[in-house]
Amino acid sequence: MSTHRIADIGFARLDLDRAARTGAPEVVYAAGKTPAETVACLAALLDGGAPLAFATRVDDATAAAVRERWAGARADEAARVVYVGDLPEPVGEVLVVAAGTSDGPVAAEVAATLAALGIGSRRVDDVGVAGVHRVLEVAGELAAADAVVVVAGMDGALPGVVAGLTDRLVVAVPTSVGYGAAFEGLAPLLTMLTACAPGVVVVNIDNGFGAAVAAAKVVRTLHR
Amino acid sequence: MSTHRIADIGFARLDLDRAARTGAPEVVYAAGKTPAETVACLAALLDGGAPLAFATRVDDATAAAVRERWAGARADEAARVVYVGDLPEPVGEVLVVAAGTSDGPVAAEVAATLAALGIGSRRVDDVGVAGVHRVLEVAGELAAADAVVVVAGMDGALPGVVAGLTDRLVVAVPTSVGYGAAFEGLAPLLTMLTACAPGVVVVNIDNGFGAAVAAAKVVRTLHR
Amino acid sequence: MSTHRIADIGFARLDLDRAARTGAPEVVYAAGKTPAETVACLAALLDGGAPLAFATRVDDATAAAVRERWAGARADEAARVVYVGDLPEPVGEVLVVAAGTSDGPVAAEVAATLAALGIGSRRVDDVGVAGVHRVLEVAGELAAADAVVVVAGMDGALPGVVAGLTDRLVVAVPTSVGYGAAFEGLAPLLTMLTACAPGVVVVNIDNGFGAAVAAAKVVRTLHR
Amino acid sequence: MSTHRIADIGFARLDLDRAARTGAPEVVYAAGKTPAETVACLAALLDGGAPLAFATRVDDATAAAVRERWAGARADEAARVVYVGDLPEPVGEVLVVAAGTSDGPVAAEVAATLAALGIGSRRVDDVGVAGVHRVLEVAGELAAADAVVVVAGMDGALPGVVAGLTDRLVVAVPTSVGYGAAFEGLAPLLTMLTACAPGVVVVNIDNGFGAAVAAAKVVRTLHR
Amino acid sequence: MSTHRIADIGFARLDLDRAARTGAPEVVYAAGKTPAETVACLAALLDGGAPLAFATRVDDATAAAVRERWAGARADEAARVVYVGDLPEPVGEVLVVAAGTSDGPVAAEVAATLAALGIGSRRVDDVGVAGVHRVLEVAGELAAADAVVVVAGMDGALPGVVAGLTDRLVVAVPTSVGYGAAFEGLAPLLTMLTACAPGVVVVNIDNGFGAAVAAAKVVRTLHR
Amino acid sequence: MSTHRIADIGFARLDLDRAARTGAPEVVYAAGKTPAETVACLAALLDGGAPLAFATRVDDATAAAVRERWAGARADEAARVVYVGDLPEPVGEVLVVAAGTSDGPVAAEVAATLAALGIGSRRVDDVGVAGVHRVLEVAGELAAADAVVVVAGMDGALPGVVAGLTDRLVVAVPTSVGYGAAFEGLAPLLTMLTACAPGVVVVNIDNGFGAAVAAAKVVRTLHR
Amino acid sequence: MSTHRIADIGFARLDLDRAARTGAPEVVYAAGKTPAETVACLAALLDGGAPLAFATRVDDATAAAVRERWAGARADEAARVVYVGDLPEPVGEVLVVAAGTSDGPVAAEVAATLAALGIGSRRVDDVGVAGVHRVLEVAGELAAADAVVVVAGMDGALPGVVAGLTDRLVVAVPTSVGYGAAFEGLAPLLTMLTACAPGVVVVNIDNGFGAAVAAAKVVRTLHR
Amino acid sequence: MSTHRIADIGFARLDLDRAARTGAPEVVYAAGKTPAETVACLAALLDGGAPLAFATRVDDATAAAVRERWAGARADEAARVVYVGDLPEPVGEVLVVAAGTSDGPVAAEVAATLAALGIGSRRVDDVGVAGVHRVLEVAGELAAADAVVVVAGMDGALPGVVAGLTDRLVVAVPTSVGYGAAFEGLAPLLTMLTACAPGVVVVNIDNGFGAAVAAAKVVRTLHR
Repeated sequence: MSTHRIADIGFARLDLDRAARTGAPEVVYAAGKTPAETVACLAALLDGGAPLAFATRVDDATAAAVRERWAGARADEAARVVYVGDLPEPVGEVLVVAAGTSDGPVAAEVAATLAALGIGSRRVDDVGVAGVHRVLEVAGELAAADAVVVVAGMDGALPGVVAGLTDRLVVAVPTSVGYGAAFEGLAPLLTMLTACAPGVVVVNIDNGFGAAVAAAKVVRTLHR
Repeated sequence: MSTHRIADIGFARLDLDRAARTGAPEVVYAAGKTPAETVACLAALLDGGAPLAFATRVDDATAAAVRERWAGARADEAARVVYVGDLPEPVGEVLVVAAGTSDGPVAAEVAATLAALGIGSRRVDDVGVAGVHRVLEVAGELAAADAVVVVAGMDGALPGVVAGLTDRLVVAVPTSVGYGAAFEGLAPLLTMLTACAPGVVVVNIDNGFGAAVAAAKVVRTLHR
Repeated sequence: MSTHRIADIGFARLDLDRAARTGAPEVVYAAGKTPAETVACLAALLDGGAPLAFATRVDDATAAAVRERWAGARADEAARVVYVGDLPEPVGEVLVVAAGTSDGPVAAEVAATLAALGIGSRRVDDVGVAGVHRVLEVAGELAAADAVVVVAGMDGALPGVVAGLTDRLVVAVPTSVGYGAAFEGLAPLLTMLTACAPGVVVVNIDNGFGAAVAAAKVVRTLHR
Repeated sequence: MSTHRIADIGFARLDLDRAARTGAPEVVYAAGKTPAETVACLAALLDGGAPLAFATRVDDATAAAVRERWAGARADEAARVVYVGDLPEPVGEVLVVAAGTSDGPVAAEVAATLAALGIGSRRVDDVGVAGVHRVLEVAGELAAADAVVVVAGMDGALPGVVAGLTDRLVVAVPTSVGYGAAFEGLAPLLTMLTACAPGVVVVNIDNGFGAAVAAAKVVRTLHR
Repeated sequence: MSTHRIADIGFARLDLDRAARTGAPEVVYAAGKTPAETVACLAALLDGGAPLAFATRVDDATAAAVRERWAGARADEAARVVYVGDLPEPVGEVLVVAAGTSDGPVAAEVAATLAALGIGSRRVDDVGVAGVHRVLEVAGELAAADAVVVVAGMDGALPGVVAGLTDRLVVAVPTSVGYGAAFEGLAPLLTMLTACAPGVVVVNIDNGFGAAVAAAKVVRTLHR
Repeated sequence: MSTHRIADIGFARLDLDRAARTGAPEVVYAAGKTPAETVACLAALLDGGAPLAFATRVDDATAAAVRERWAGARADEAARVVYVGDLPEPVGEVLVVAAGTSDGPVAAEVAATLAALGIGSRRVDDVGVAGVHRVLEVAGELAAADAVVVVAGMDGALPGVVAGLTDRLVVAVPTSVGYGAAFEGLAPLLTMLTACAPGVVVVNIDNGFGAAVAAAKVVRTLHR
Repeated sequence: MSTHRIADIGFARLDLDRAARTGAPEVVYAAGKTPAETVACLAALLDGGAPLAFATRVDDATAAAVRERWAGARADEAARVVYVGDLPEPVGEVLVVAAGTSDGPVAAEVAATLAALGIGSRRVDDVGVAGVHRVLEVAGELAAADAVVVVAGMDGALPGVVAGLTDRLVVAVPTSVGYGAAFEGLAPLLTMLTACAPGVVVVNIDNGFGAAVAAAKVVRTLHR
Repeated sequence: MSTHRIADIGFARLDLDRAARTGAPEVVYAAGKTPAETVACLAALLDGGAPLAFATRVDDATAAAVRERWAGARADEAARVVYVGDLPEPVGEVLVVAAGTSDGPVAAEVAATLAALGIGSRRVDDVGVAGVHRVLEVAGELAAADAVVVVAGMDGALPGVVAGLTDRLVVAVPTSVGYGAAFEGLAPLLTMLTACAPGVVVVNIDNGFGAAVAAAKVVRTLHR
């Protein structure tokens, strides 16, 4: 049984069995692709048998091109994601916590990716450590979730505080919002890596997609 | 019911309810502490009711001091860890993969911490991407584990390859071994953060302890 | 009236009127000086009329040399500070908060410098954000202090949390303790500079002396 | 009595009691927000009882939207700040010193923020260390102020010279103006952190707002 | 016999004997030059006797200007290269492997430069290590090539895997595609420099031209 | 036919078919290994059929242990290399050029590795660009070699000058000698990567071994 | 006699006696200033008695505004400089050497500034180390000049080669042209600072103005 | 007439005509050389006809070896320099200004090198900008010198202030003394490169030798 079928469409070779092999399907990263290229990649995935194909980091032109090609396609503008096909019925719940309003697009990408992977999520926004009682107010939700994703820019201090309040895995996503010594996300990245609360794990700056895949692996284990 | 009991021993204030709250107990980080300080911290944890107290990054003098104080203490020299009390019966299995022989001490810290947390582990060493067939040989073990920890220095390329072969969470630990452009672990850290296989999460350089705590959270969820 | 008297002792030229001009006296930074040089500098300050002369970053040999020269000299070993002369009667109170036990020497330097400047202080140690209730427990003390100094290494997240709980100036001191992505204090430095709670100000890595001088300026204003 | 009232407006949760708790009110950071979002945040603060609401880093479109919503709103274009409500009667005086003409917008943000916080200020511009007599000319003003804020880009050398001439707290703000080895503000940031005159404290690059809040805390202590 | 003839055209001095001396002709790097300047440089090289002149990093305006001047000029849009004159008959074969679709333009520059230097090439695209079987599928081609060029952004892990599968020289080209901790190509650059498989050599970020020249030197040796 | 035989000796798994597969045999990197571990690795390679086993980065204790185990072992102290077995008859010639006397150990590692790989070499030392005539004097040798390796620290300018004088591949090795802005080899690394003479390829800082393997691949192609 | 007259024009305070004091007049750095502000600064300098006022880093709009205000103003477009008043009769000669055509604007700024300071200059362009004979060809000119300024981007290797060929002071100017590992001028900056030929001194990236002032100081000493 | 005589002593090739060609003789950089190697280099220079040979960065063992070989050799311990032969009669005067006592060894290297080059010097130590009047006190000496060298660590602000007070060339030497955000000399290096007073030129961190050679070139021009 082959688990390495490839769809070769010239400028790209799509990994049709990635979901079977790794638990997460091949997804189209639209940044740096033309609308036509993104459409072609989505079509190849659907042709390869995927019940749902989706792309991240889509701009308006790409979203329009996708909806023109597939009438039923849905775009999540806040998350810059577009879906073709039916979203699976969600299982479990990941709590997605964002430190500031500017971290919203990345948090939206986390939630949109989880939806595509068939995992439920719940968002809590604007929970900065400068008002630490806002964090404490969600302690109950932190304990009840299957996993936690924390999105934060600037000082990136939130995941370390959150991880001290829950026994769930905390996936931390640094964001590139901010200015000056935030250095395009370097500051929150280093903060999260050195967080004193053990059990914090980190993904790339602005990588809401990757955080969602990691959280989904945990939740799926729990609910199988 | 208080979940925030503190043992105040002057130079340190130990968080006795951390295990109840976060799933991982307060652990003594011995680097930068005198042998006497480490002993005092361990004693306070045991006095606070912990069935097992342990310290990481212990040198020979500290290990000796601990064993002098508690005859039954056991040291894991490769991991630079010392335990006082009985290790819990392990559940589950984490696969701990190390890229090179120099990554051994960090991989040992992962395994020793898992043991203290009551999680089983299995180690596979010296699996570099320069001989990619060595990675493929362990694909079965990767699929069978509850979670995977990958320890690698220099180019840090192994976690990205591993994550393409398993649907389990891959916790990546960059190490500071190596020279030149490895820049004390910066190179593998950046490699792991930008790994193209989604689902890789990263902890601090040389932080075997933190990787173990993260993996343990996943396994415990699975086996509860 | 001259406020710029200089004591020229060959290898150093000491600013005898610095206290009159800037509110903080010339102090001997002993790192990189021989014991004899530190003794000579202290002697020149005393000869210039200072009621108290003191040195920071002294090692054991220097402390011994100072005590041999002046029988009444006192050394604060934890702070690596030595005093010759009488400490002034303290006014006011600065709360000195340290995140971890490894931050102790820098916190001690803050307190010892405040004592030399005639300012009272009170220390609270081992208050990490991973156990955020430990921070909340000292909220009353934070509100009652004249100023707050927060010393933290690794993620350096504590000052941002503290600043959300008090209306006093928060002087943040990053420390070089830690490992890996802490990068010798760079991580907590960036975290503190980008802290979302406004009103946090930052000094150089490990610069407990500078934090004390800044806090002292605030307290002295209040009590004049 | 609650000091943690939150105004939840969907995309943001505003901290209505921040002024009571920390001495500085919640302020709207408009960068990265749409004009409508900034208007909504300001409205929520006013609805929550704030006598004055203001936003920083506003562009022309946002300033226009605010003035359209509230006829009496005032914009300070140089400072990129907009106010709704009455400015409090100022107490005290902070001296705001700028090294070069390019540092003007940040210095203006300092002064505008101080005005909103009810603190008086006085600006001295274009005082570079290359003409050190320009610094000496303002020595009298430096001694008379309640606190000093120094704004400087490129080499960032001015705060260290100023701190040698006054016994007031010197809050240093590095700016991102300049080119080449200024590296977007990194050079003046490092210079200020390592300034040899003790008592210099530093805030984030371009963070005029934060410097004003810190200076205001000092002045308010003095005048209460 | 002179091997250092220079064509001085005012704003540039072209090295007419570079091919004789170093094996690679002077080539026009069009970035930062006006279309007219690029045309003038190409003309000078042709006037100096070159059978083929070409420019890299050409934008649309420059390509148009070149084709207007020489009707027979050919542009390779994907590679951003333009040729005037006849391409030499190719000898040998370099395998050009690209990790992702975004690395395409750099891989195209490699192939276009090789064509201009008279070396054959064959491209294999979208061969990421996250699907390591895609790499293994080309093992035969890797062994058959005269030299291998590997182009990769983000984690840059591909060259190290490839070098474990072939005894040919592997020239690695990091690219600036990607985001976050890729830091404009720094991450793949460090990965490639520290690759554990010996025999990997590295050129500048995005420098497809330089990689082609290096590979061509090897192939020409083989086929002379 | 398997080309992936592994010798598993517990702490290490040696790749016995690496030479057959990649053209360069598995070599023991002795840094970070005990003398006994290095001896065990060498023994495993010899047991696996290698006619020659060698280790790099050996200290005196390791060299002594190897010679005690195998009477005929030879150490090259300057290169910090030790051989067990007979060196092959050399073919071809690589010119190894060192910029300064401090670059000697790395240049020696290049030559010693080439000898173990069966490739001839010739060294030219102390050829700095500050006396550019010294470079020109070796132009004939540069043209006659099969490949060139250039080793340089500090400014690392030599490879770019050399590459303008030869049509052979130039493998550049930055070294960590030097001080200040050389930043442990970062300065020459960046210089070599941005060298204006195309055809320069770069390996890791101090990686004489890797440069030799790359050069050997070229020479072997030529002489097969 | 005062040598510290200031022209205070509100947004700027111009140092009218800088030429008398430091040998170089106050010059208007137009980047970041509006055309009107640059005009006002130039007017203030002329009103203050300067025989010639000039501005650097002027864009087209500013150049137009200056020429509209003073009919006799002259703009040097390549150098982005504009002059009002008569250029002094030049003395001496500085040789201005540029490594590549992209370094032209900075070299032009050097020459234009020298002209304004009354110093003669002579330019030699496109003298890269990849064709080292081009450098040797100008050895005579290097020896005959009063001082040498070398402008180079990318690897920045030229000043070190030049300094080995002349006994004159070599002022090196790194430029921000280039890509990849040139890191906006960081690579040539480090190269120049670590150049092995002693007697190379360095100014900020792209700072042609500063290099000219330094060279002018040397030449004026020679010709007084 | 050859000006490129080389003394080849095996491990080093000494440039005997460097003084004739560049105005500064070949000097032995003893760091990283054995005492015997330094002695051999000095002997070769003397054999080549140099009236004076000297070495920098000598440790005690090397100084002893040199004095054993040549009874008349003189060591300057503070400067870590040793001379063999007679110092030339000095001409001119360079003012060597050091910011702090820790900068003494580098300032001593400047003076010792100037002495070997036949240039007079005068030192002024411990002139920090925190007491800016100490700088103003030496304004007369700054104006009277032929050139100025300023040595400073930590914030490196002194050269910019000095350059505003003199029309002489100011050669700035950053030092690696200091801690924290001084980052081994990076902070003063960036400060000096971005100094607002034009006419400051910079050499490598701790490179007192290079600063002396640059200053000597200026003085020799003046006095020929």
